[in-house]
Amino acid sequence: MHVHAFIQEMECLAPPELAEDFDAEKIGLVIEGRVDISRVCCALDATPYVVKKAVLASADMLVVHHTPLWTPITAITGRVAGLMRALLSSDMNLYVMHTNFDRASEGVNDALAELLSLKDISPMSIGCIGSCTLSPVEISQRLGGNCRLWGKVKKIRRLALVAGSGFDPAFLEEAKALGADTFLSAEMKHSVARTAPLPCIEATHYALEAPAMQRLSTRMGWQYIDDPPALQIIP
Amino acid sequence: MHVHAFIQEMECLAPPELAEDFDAEKIGLVIEGRVDISRVCCALDATPYVVKKAVLASADMLVVHHTPLWTPITAITGRVAGLMRALLSSDMNLYVMHTNFDRASEGVNDALAELLSLKDISPMSIGCIGSCTLSPVEISQRLGGNCRLWGKVKKIRRLALVAGSGFDPAFLEEAKALGADTFLSAEMKHSVARTAPLPCIEATHYALEAPAMQRLSTRMGWQYIDDPPALQIIP
Amino acid sequence: MHVHAFIQEMECLAPPELAEDFDAEKIGLVIEGRVDISRVCCALDATPYVVKKAVLASADMLVVHHTPLWTPITAITGRVAGLMRALLSSDMNLYVMHTNFDRASEGVNDALAELLSLKDISPMSIGCIGSCTLSPVEISQRLGGNCRLWGKVKKIRRLALVAGSGFDPAFLEEAKALGADTFLSAEMKHSVARTAPLPCIEATHYALEAPAMQRLSTRMGWQYIDDPPALQIIP
Amino acid sequence: MHVHAFIQEMECLAPPELAEDFDAEKIGLVIEGRVDISRVCCALDATPYVVKKAVLASADMLVVHHTPLWTPITAITGRVAGLMRALLSSDMNLYVMHTNFDRASEGVNDALAELLSLKDISPMSIGCIGSCTLSPVEISQRLGGNCRLWGKVKKIRRLALVAGSGFDPAFLEEAKALGADTFLSAEMKHSVARTAPLPCIEATHYALEAPAMQRLSTRMGWQYIDDPPALQIIP
Amino acid sequence: MHVHAFIQEMECLAPPELAEDFDAEKIGLVIEGRVDISRVCCALDATPYVVKKAVLASADMLVVHHTPLWTPITAITGRVAGLMRALLSSDMNLYVMHTNFDRASEGVNDALAELLSLKDISPMSIGCIGSCTLSPVEISQRLGGNCRLWGKVKKIRRLALVAGSGFDPAFLEEAKALGADTFLSAEMKHSVARTAPLPCIEATHYALEAPAMQRLSTRMGWQYIDDPPALQIIP
Amino acid sequence: MHVHAFIQEMECLAPPELAEDFDAEKIGLVIEGRVDISRVCCALDATPYVVKKAVLASADMLVVHHTPLWTPITAITGRVAGLMRALLSSDMNLYVMHTNFDRASEGVNDALAELLSLKDISPMSIGCIGSCTLSPVEISQRLGGNCRLWGKVKKIRRLALVAGSGFDPAFLEEAKALGADTFLSAEMKHSVARTAPLPCIEATHYALEAPAMQRLSTRMGWQYIDDPPALQIIP
Repeated sequence: MHVHAFIQEMECLAPPELAEDFDAEKIGLVIEGRVDISRVCCALDATPYVVKKAVLASADMLVVHHTPLWTPITAITGRVAGLMRALLSSDMNLYVMHTNFDRASEGVNDALAELLSLKDISPMSIGCIGSCTLSPVEISQRLGGNCRLWGKVKKIRRLALVAGSGFDPAFLEEAKALGADTFLSAEMKHSVARTAPLPCIEATHYALEAPAMQRLSTRMGWQYIDDPPALQIIP
Repeated sequence: MHVHAFIQEMECLAPPELAEDFDAEKIGLVIEGRVDISRVCCALDATPYVVKKAVLASADMLVVHHTPLWTPITAITGRVAGLMRALLSSDMNLYVMHTNFDRASEGVNDALAELLSLKDISPMSIGCIGSCTLSPVEISQRLGGNCRLWGKVKKIRRLALVAGSGFDPAFLEEAKALGADTFLSAEMKHSVARTAPLPCIEATHYALEAPAMQRLSTRMGWQYIDDPPALQIIP
Repeated sequence: MHVHAFIQEMECLAPPELAEDFDAEKIGLVIEGRVDISRVCCALDATPYVVKKAVLASADMLVVHHTPLWTPITAITGRVAGLMRALLSSDMNLYVMHTNFDRASEGVNDALAELLSLKDISPMSIGCIGSCTLSPVEISQRLGGNCRLWGKVKKIRRLALVAGSGFDPAFLEEAKALGADTFLSAEMKHSVARTAPLPCIEATHYALEAPAMQRLSTRMGWQYIDDPPALQIIP
Repeated sequence: MHVHAFIQEMECLAPPELAEDFDAEKIGLVIEGRVDISRVCCALDATPYVVKKAVLASADMLVVHHTPLWTPITAITGRVAGLMRALLSSDMNLYVMHTNFDRASEGVNDALAELLSLKDISPMSIGCIGSCTLSPVEISQRLGGNCRLWGKVKKIRRLALVAGSGFDPAFLEEAKALGADTFLSAEMKHSVARTAPLPCIEATHYALEAPAMQRLSTRMGWQYIDDPPALQIIP
Repeated sequence: MHVHAFIQEMECLAPPELAEDFDAEKIGLVIEGRVDISRVCCALDATPYVVKKAVLASADMLVVHHTPLWTPITAITGRVAGLMRALLSSDMNLYVMHTNFDRASEGVNDALAELLSLKDISPMSIGCIGSCTLSPVEISQRLGGNCRLWGKVKKIRRLALVAGSGFDPAFLEEAKALGADTFLSAEMKHSVARTAPLPCIEATHYALEAPAMQRLSTRMGWQYIDDPPALQIIP
Repeated sequence: MHVHAFIQEMECLAPPELAEDFDAEKIGLVIEGRVDISRVCCALDATPYVVKKAVLASADMLVVHHTPLWTPITAITGRVAGLMRALLSSDMNLYVMHTNFDRASEGVNDALAELLSLKDISPMSIGCIGSCTLSPVEISQRLGGNCRLWGKVKKIRRLALVAGSGFDPAFLEEAKALGADTFLSAEMKHSVARTAPLPCIEATHYALEAPAMQRLSTRMGWQYIDDPPALQIIP
């Protein structure tokens, strides 16, 4: 497939116009390689490990959620140089879907809702709310375990979720106003926890977003490359 | 003691000129009450629970680390109205020491270093580095348990610590350049963890900063009010 | 009446969307007190005298034109602390209508036009123009006397008025273009007077705006609290 | 005298480096005419009347306190065109001394202090404070009469004065802290009057600043052109 | 003709709303003189030579493309004083049409396209593209000679042109995408030339824009004043 | 030589602290390749031709005056991708000296002054002035010919020069005030030419700056790669 056709297909899956303004110039074809695309790899982040695996797989295209060029650069040195050298010298393309994929149908939040078997789902300004029959322990286990619970949960009926870093006071208020009794996201801050109007389950960013990339890979026939952060609880 | 004398004493403990620019107008006497100060309470945050306990204790002054008026306001409504009503109607003063106390001698970072028995301490642009004989498990237990470990630690020799939310890529690089082998702070972000040059121990913001307020209370003969966030690990 | 119902009624009288952008977050329920509203006081400014009278009257709600929290604050000290303590400890609400009430039908400018018996009124971008049968002396007397006259007036036929601080060169030009022969407002500046295309009558800010609050109180059955500034001419 | 020599002399009288930042590019030789300077006129403002008188006097130079080109322009039309035509076609120079003359020794504030016979004068960040033996009525009369008095004055002992528009809350607080019991300036605003910590005498901007231009003219042997605004009190 | 009628006519020729935002306040009647307009002169720039010729011709109005008051001023000195004195003391009007005339029908770009006998013209976001039967040498000669050619031209078929300073990378890309094979404008920069996707013919700004003013003069019965910059090639 | 030693040597030749603020993050080691540096190529610009020649020469390091990453990027596509791929996949380093080399001793302006045999040289805020015995034709020929002369030159005695794009009105005024009678630079603009106080010789940016890179290469034993823009005069 020509890279233009591939891009068109991606833009159907995750329309660029759904993205937040801060994603401008940071999504789409972020590194341009060869024009014929047959082998595609997919991952959450373009880590050195992920790029090495994609090169070994002779991928023509690597699709990720987080761009490795978030901060605009005028020099290619250090860690970035190694990554760019690996990608450019193998003539691989790098394609990024970020907040446009968060919001897309069958995108990051939808995949998470499906993983947690939510029903009667209604959207929020970001993420969604749905009826949940799982306990906190079951939610944690579906997300790889070791979640953190802020506040006290009796029984979850309506769960609000925002994949990624979504513990924003405005989103918490919105979720509460819409009837949620528990809020699931990642990267809780102390100042937010202190005034949270709902109990909060904190998973990792990776645990919440990687499932969407994995499901997309399966659906598209791509090779998914898993690279979770090394994380453990110290008792 | 007159409130002016109390303020002078506080400014010796935590000189306002040590504070970050973003703390301007947000430290010092943040709510002005009666002028005679004899009973003093102290806590990390001015939560509703803390203020209620201080009122019950007939405190003339409450000293905290985090101001409840961080965002400038032009209205006093909702949660803030309740807090302000409790403070103002009891004529209590509220005094805030924030980044000036982080950096003060015997301040937040010094108290944390002492709690972890660090030796041969040298300062960083924020926080410090010291020789550490504790294992990650021992560190976690001194901090109330349930820390998270990002990456792999063999044996800690030189520990960098930044109380509060200090997982900044620039601080991590600085710590590594200064010889640290492990970095302790709170509120890790996925994007930082992905490129961290050191293994990181993530405690809670409260666990890292409350000890300093507690020690200060003991030293000054104040009543310390403990109010940790309700947090547990879901397996 | 529940405070929500009271607010709804106020928003009919002075729709928030009529307000200037600079009034954002500075109008409406600026201090939140008890929810049951029966006694209402009203004044132009929330001065210490006004608040004391409202407390003595056991008011549930004080309605004013000028917010006492114009500059956003991160501390409650000095004069503001006294005012906030009086309001919050008596559980009184404070509601502000500012430029939205200036522009409202039967609002500040309308009340002033009525006080001066203007006819054939047409609106300006702010304030209005109307046919006037009063002499400058009669106008001054209806406004409490001691107005200042800049320039020379023969006979007033069409009077432009802007309640508050309205001697803006653009408003003066607009008034002249629309056929006004005299301009009434408050707080004249030297630089504006030097190039004014019309003779100007300068009353006090209070004299121009208080009548609207007084009329509103009468209409609504509220208690109006008058607190004009102490001002006299020295010969 | 060559215009360069004239400018040097002026810069000794009112050093440009004393000016506020907002005066940048707005003081000094603001309109450049002929190079030989013998006849000099002086006024507070470059009004059409003043310029006409200066042209009739065949002035080579007009010295004023307030520039007629305050707002930067990209077109010369309307009132400004008339003024510029009169000045440029008669080849007259226009020289402006503003906040640098306010602050200069024997400048605007000094001339005002002298006019009011102040003694034991000490400077403020703008204006000054001095011992005063005049009553409010005597002050008003030395300033042409019809001053306004805000608040109540018993007996003036230490008078703070700021020529021009100086009723700034920060200046009022400074004056009080330095022991003033009364504050004299021009262009009072309602919001400032409401919280003024001192009684205030409000004269006109012209009455406070013109004396300095008049005294300067006498000292230098220039022709002073008086053009006070037409202002009267309506009973 | 009254100056208002003249302005109306000009606004039909070059509607102000076509102008770029940066032309705000810098087009239209930039210097206001007498109101009766019979003799009109026209030039590209209001140079001292042009103004002198217009004064000698007793012009009531001078129409130019480039305002002499581009940078907003608060002083009229040096070169500008001489120009303003000449214009204002002769009571002449100065009218500016800039980017609005670039874009107008029969405006600057249209006149240039006509001069070069372009056919099948289609617009670009600025300037236009047309079929061209001239060689580079013929183009250069119609523009007064001594053009510079950047890159290699075989045969011009579709010429893109932007009168004035139009060698912008975005315009060059647009021209190429629209089928142009050569790009004509003025004021090439090294950085642009290095990455230009098309060969470029660089004429002078004057040679590209003066023809439109000349044609306009002929059409309107005005006196055109030619004042090209003194420019020659040194072998 | 290790790349760190090479960088130290470069920083002696062109100290980074001499650079303009706009060069921040855009000079120094802009692309990081292998650490052992033996073969060095040098050019004015990192054009595709220059990079290809440097790759063919197996260069470890390419030193240029103009960075190819001037505009900060978040994607590597199109022309930039080709350039980055060539550099990164050959593991070559790219080092940039820009305004720091302009100002360095024996830097860009010094090399130009030497090429034109200037004597009695004194510095300007940028560039320099020196006594010149060459005619315009001789200057043009030393610069590769086809310079443009704006205005009229009788005999050059004191020549001001600014390598690169230096026709700034402030520099022209400075040069005149310092006694220059002719000004040499590149990239003249119409608006500057119209008010230039001196006759100006306009060479190309390349002709003015490439000599310094060539001389540096000779001095250092590097391979200089010449790549002038294709430019010719059309009669």
